[in-house]
Amino acid sequence: MNAPVEANAAADLPGYMESVGRRARSAAVAMGRAATAQKNAALAAIAAGIRSASASILEANRRDVERATAAGLEAPLLDRLRLSGAAIEKMAAGVEKIVALPDPVGEVTDVRPQPSGLRIGRMRVPLGVIGIIYESRPNVTVDAAALCVKSGNATILRGGSEAIDSNRLLAQVVSHGLRAAGLPGEAVQLVESTDRAAVGLLVSMPKYVDVIVPRGGRGLIERLAAESRVPMIKHLDGNCHVYVDAAADLAQAVQVAVNAKTYRYGICGAMETLLVHADVAAVFLPQVAAELTARGVELRGCAATCALLPQAKPADEQDWFTEYLAPILAVRVVDSLDTAIAHIEHYGSHHTDAIVSRDHVAIERFLREVDSSSVMVNAPTCFADGYEYGLGAEIGISTDKLHARGPVGLEGLTSEKFVVFGSGQLRR
Amino acid sequence: MNAPVEANAAADLPGYMESVGRRARSAAVAMGRAATAQKNAALAAIAAGIRSASASILEANRRDVERATAAGLEAPLLDRLRLSGAAIEKMAAGVEKIVALPDPVGEVTDVRPQPSGLRIGRMRVPLGVIGIIYESRPNVTVDAAALCVKSGNATILRGGSEAIDSNRLLAQVVSHGLRAAGLPGEAVQLVESTDRAAVGLLVSMPKYVDVIVPRGGRGLIERLAAESRVPMIKHLDGNCHVYVDAAADLAQAVQVAVNAKTYRYGICGAMETLLVHADVAAVFLPQVAAELTARGVELRGCAATCALLPQAKPADEQDWFTEYLAPILAVRVVDSLDTAIAHIEHYGSHHTDAIVSRDHVAIERFLREVDSSSVMVNAPTCFADGYEYGLGAEIGISTDKLHARGPVGLEGLTSEKFVVFGSGQLRR
Repeated sequence: MNAPVEANAAADLPGYMESVGRRARSAAVAMGRAATAQKNAALAAIAAGIRSASASILEANRRDVERATAAGLEAPLLDRLRLSGAAIEKMAAGVEKIVALPDPVGEVTDVRPQPSGLRIGRMRVPLGVIGIIYESRPNVTVDAAALCVKSGNATILRGGSEAIDSNRLLAQVVSHGLRAAGLPGEAVQLVESTDRAAVGLLVSMPKYVDVIVPRGGRGLIERLAAESRVPMIKHLDGNCHVYVDAAADLAQAVQVAVNAKTYRYGICGAMETLLVHADVAAVFLPQVAAELTARGVELRGCAATCALLPQAKPADEQDWFTEYLAPILAVRVVDSLDTAIAHIEHYGSHHTDAIVSRDHVAIERFLREVDSSSVMVNAPTCFADGYEYGLGAEIGISTDKLHARGPVGLEGLTSEKFVVFGSGQLRR
Repeated sequence: MNAPVEANAAADLPGYMESVGRRARSAAVAMGRAATAQKNAALAAIAAGIRSASASILEANRRDVERATAAGLEAPLLDRLRLSGAAIEKMAAGVEKIVALPDPVGEVTDVRPQPSGLRIGRMRVPLGVIGIIYESRPNVTVDAAALCVKSGNATILRGGSEAIDSNRLLAQVVSHGLRAAGLPGEAVQLVESTDRAAVGLLVSMPKYVDVIVPRGGRGLIERLAAESRVPMIKHLDGNCHVYVDAAADLAQAVQVAVNAKTYRYGICGAMETLLVHADVAAVFLPQVAAELTARGVELRGCAATCALLPQAKPADEQDWFTEYLAPILAVRVVDSLDTAIAHIEHYGSHHTDAIVSRDHVAIERFLREVDSSSVMVNAPTCFADGYEYGLGAEIGISTDKLHARGPVGLEGLTSEKFVVFGSGQLRR
């Protein structure tokens, strides 16, 4: 393969990261020019490769899990780290789903004639090199790689150190699939070093990395944001609200609220605070509380809520800020739509918030004034998801305002440039 | 006005900047909700205010120019600082042009039904608070303020210190116009301190500032990018290329190249390097060189160019990287489209690059493979401009890949959130 003399990750981490960056930049050029059929062939080869390497992937993963168990990793994190035959099949099937998505690269839109006679529009193009920093979840290695391949980007993956053996093997399978389709294997590279300093280096190479997508806890992401010299597509927390308006269909509101909380407790679109208009609180709260309590959800309410619900404990200021990701719900009675919007603005995380109402004016105001990546009407917040939005697989849900906002799928991994079609027009 | 007790800019700069940020954040909420008619009324009042304050603006500007002259400011910078009656009228007319542009805020697009029964689309919303850092050009104060008002944002302006008296007066006129339309005067604030530390504080307040738009030299922008804790919409240099292909209409190519260089030397869309396919160099170069030399343009060429053109001096490596912004042009003969694209990729600044050709395949490859914010066919690079693109006034031309790329007009100062319309659908 004519590999250049390589810096060794252990002996010279900055030199190693630089060589990773240089290879990614060079692979990005080929990926940006690759035809759709070629990228799809690579994805098909990756899916097949995952299936046929299943036994060795399980074996590598067993080593990771053993090491992590010995090191005392907590049970929920071990669960995320552990692969099964079914999980491996799901990875392969996920890659195949991405084959089926339309290729965003090269799409030309909005071409309009201008007074000069030029026709001017936009062409969708890859971002270039995407650095992805994630926790010890081997499935992310494959999901992220597949999304980057389809969107014509090169990617540098830095997974949690506990998953290093699984990730190494998966990255090899991915590179092999790329080469089988005539694309550079270096278009997807795993950072081989588990040294935390590698992350700091990765976010400090704007020459080689165009954007960083960090996944993981709020603390990690805030630390990276403070350190990064490369633009980031960030997903902070999902402190999501459902506001039940005075004009809500209360039977519908009960269903929406229960679904928003209980569809899955651990997803970022789960409702964490329920806001209820005072006019309907006395009727609505006992109904919804009965359903939630029956499902084992603990309720923490404002004074008005506690007066209506014997099972509710008093909420404190911190509760309104909290993304529980657990069967706990904060509940507040509000005197108006304005108070509901102000609450969401002050305590929320600009992720996903919903109104249940039949009042057109209240709905219009909520949609316009709530400054979140998704605003919903008569639908539970747990719908915040790339597949549900018709975007296909997502690399994360952005709570940033610039570039991508909400679920980030293939389109969020691209950018648009201007294309100008002339026939010799001159500027005077 | 019930102003809170204020930190004094001179005595407590961090406290002062924090209070500016807090007021901007609060004004941004009102601006985001403002009706189009209200924003247009504010802009009309600002235009009228500029005209009626013309004499005092000229007087304030005279003080700035006097001080800057005494301090030995260079002539081109003095020119940018100096206002005239005509320049003031141009500012007012510029604001009125922005009244005429469509309001981007609240636009809902791409609403599509999904399998769940939800209808999902996007709504365009303001970014929030925009910090603009610019050189000593008082007209930017008004242009930037007007674009931010129309796009529903609050803005914090930090102009060059030499223009402080002009800028103070202009900012007062703007705030007065906002208040006359019932909008918060604090939606446009000028940083009153000329201390350079104020810039460092402005780019370190992600809580109060959503995006920074820096204008000015490459050195300043790179320093800010290294320091900034807030996302930036950057415009680095415009090292633009015209590539004359083997299949070019050579008469058209001469006109396009001459226009690209000479329309204006000082704009970022001016051509700085001319690339010519070897097959047509012997015919084309003498023709284009005669036109350019007649207009006083100095030519710096590769060996092949110098062999064809007696008036050309030899170019060195640095010339290919240089944005001259002057009547100087680098010229290189290339053996293929691939070499031309590789040259642009290596030496260019990803701003605007053009091909002159009649060959469909060459054009398609150039459009797809040249990774610049604008790629043009049979048109001179000097067309890179918000008005020419039908975007209206621009706040700058972004050479970034994330978010806005190319001319940044009203749309670039907004973002899109997802809007989800349901009727009680639940996720299963």
